[in-house]
Amino acid sequence: MNNLNKELHLTNRPVDMPTLEDFRIVEKSISELKENEVLVKTLYLSVDPYMRGRMSDAKSYIEPFQLNEKISGGAVGEVIESNSDNFKQGDIVAGMLGWSEYNVVNGHALNKINPELAPVTTSLGILGMPGLTAYFGLLDIGQPKEGETVVISGAAGAVGSIVGQIAKIKGAYVVGIAGSDDKTDYLMNELNFDKAINYKTTPNMKEALQEACPNGVDVYFENVGGEISDAVFTMLNKFARICVCGAISTYNLPSNEDIGPRIQRTLIKSSVLMKGFVVNDYAERWSEGIKQIAQWLNEGKLTYEETITEGFENIPDAFLGLFKGSNLGKQLVKIAEPTYAKL
Amino acid sequence: MNNLNKELHLTNRPVDMPTLEDFRIVEKSISELKENEVLVKTLYLSVDPYMRGRMSDAKSYIEPFQLNEKISGGAVGEVIESNSDNFKQGDIVAGMLGWSEYNVVNGHALNKINPELAPVTTSLGILGMPGLTAYFGLLDIGQPKEGETVVISGAAGAVGSIVGQIAKIKGAYVVGIAGSDDKTDYLMNELNFDKAINYKTTPNMKEALQEACPNGVDVYFENVGGEISDAVFTMLNKFARICVCGAISTYNLPSNEDIGPRIQRTLIKSSVLMKGFVVNDYAERWSEGIKQIAQWLNEGKLTYEETITEGFENIPDAFLGLFKGSNLGKQLVKIAEPTYAKL
Repeated sequence: MNNLNKELHLTNRPVDMPTLEDFRIVEKSISELKENEVLVKTLYLSVDPYMRGRMSDAKSYIEPFQLNEKISGGAVGEVIESNSDNFKQGDIVAGMLGWSEYNVVNGHALNKINPELAPVTTSLGILGMPGLTAYFGLLDIGQPKEGETVVISGAAGAVGSIVGQIAKIKGAYVVGIAGSDDKTDYLMNELNFDKAINYKTTPNMKEALQEACPNGVDVYFENVGGEISDAVFTMLNKFARICVCGAISTYNLPSNEDIGPRIQRTLIKSSVLMKGFVVNDYAERWSEGIKQIAQWLNEGKLTYEETITEGFENIPDAFLGLFKGSNLGKQLVKIAEPTYAKL
Repeated sequence: MNNLNKELHLTNRPVDMPTLEDFRIVEKSISELKENEVLVKTLYLSVDPYMRGRMSDAKSYIEPFQLNEKISGGAVGEVIESNSDNFKQGDIVAGMLGWSEYNVVNGHALNKINPELAPVTTSLGILGMPGLTAYFGLLDIGQPKEGETVVISGAAGAVGSIVGQIAKIKGAYVVGIAGSDDKTDYLMNELNFDKAINYKTTPNMKEALQEACPNGVDVYFENVGGEISDAVFTMLNKFARICVCGAISTYNLPSNEDIGPRIQRTLIKSSVLMKGFVVNDYAERWSEGIKQIAQWLNEGKLTYEETITEGFENIPDAFLGLFKGSNLGKQLVKIAEPTYAKL
């Protein structure tokens, strides 16, 4: 094997929508393995909206990416060489990996995956961060009760599509907001949502929501922010809960341009709870979440969709596509086939 | 006694700041007492910021006032005549009464007050709605822990001044925001707040908050809304809690003019909880709250201030003064001395 290795670097901190020019592919040599280290070949990379936040250097819940260093994120790979007793050649692993074809990683930072239990990509989706985000955000904050109305923005995305299905399992009336007819068809026909609204073709979101939610809104799972959410906020019932997971429509705005109606009077009027969260807040309960999601998956109560872009050079495209709504379900990038393992 | 009685009517629904022209004093005759009814002479009326909401006809948690009918609110009165077995002449009572010199009320809508336990006005303040609002909002939503930083806007008002004292009892570091040097002096010298900021004379709220809150903000008790709160929101620590009690600075704005930074990214960044509430949400626990507040009052751990305006014709002035920050502590209007009771 060639000792050179492609890495994807961030070269600028975008102030609004990132462009391909903010990224650069760099060839670097792979370092020698030290004790406990493992050489991992990247198979699948996850691109996620939260990474946009790490491209700015504002203080947040997670450190900014360094300029002219490789970006990193959730990934699935194959062990090529191992100096760790816990891993051997051909093992499939998941962890936070650099955006490069190969990574040298301490074994402690990797989790072994059994490819016979589920497709390995699910560890980046329904059995990984997006699944847990949906599970804890909806059930811990939203707490939907039978017959209540749950509205989800970004409903056809990696998180939203799982939120809606869990809400259905809990007996709620589920309304999804998404950005294409393909997506709303998917929500209605594949995921059995009760109503789906294409916000791009709906002339008046307030009216569409009033029609779709005759009993108002008890739980709002927030993925997009902006004017769509402003419209949902006019529909909240007494003691409604808002699970604030993301605000993707605003991530490319400087924070002083994300301007809209202030929320206080809305929260007072209906005694509404609004709670921001990240999946790490629930780290101590992840195994509970994974176990429950896996059980629902095995029982056929949950399904999932993946959008897989192929090729290392297409990572920026796949990432930028998140902000255009190009993905249905979880957006992944397939980097390579495994060398030793069979998937 | 003359059978004519002054009533204060709302004659217009104000769209921005109400004016004296939105109110009118009308003379009406007092109706005959039916079974269980009581004739109550008004002694003290409470004027409260939430009443501004009832002057508009927008859907809210409480019904709008009717035009050309008397306004109503919390009040203390004296029983003049009684057809109820529960009340006799000279009893002091509290309840929701019309803004008139006398009211005929069903006995079930009145609570008897023992004037020997505490000044009767406290049933409209620290031992009434404002005290309970402070108690439940801070302790149920804010849950301040020892050493945490609690920031309160409208800190010298009826609710805020009690919130800060309870936060001190719980061992928090307490910072109050108020609108005059008299008020900040009161917070620092009488209520032992740790810091107080006069927002009217502070050139830069963000800098003032950074200086006053070196450890960030763990609990924000929101009474005012608007730009002051926008500044506090930049200071929130991980897992901060925002008790959304009021937004008085915005009550005279049409809702589409209460515009500012959207809150979602702030809530996500630090996993913040934000909860609107009204005191009625805690109706089942009021007796617990009253008991605890009364105990702290008896132990000298709580104190309170009242601003008392005299005269029926000055009710609108006292109400409008709330929006100018004229009051220190609870704003009341004294309507009359009792006829039979001694206070």
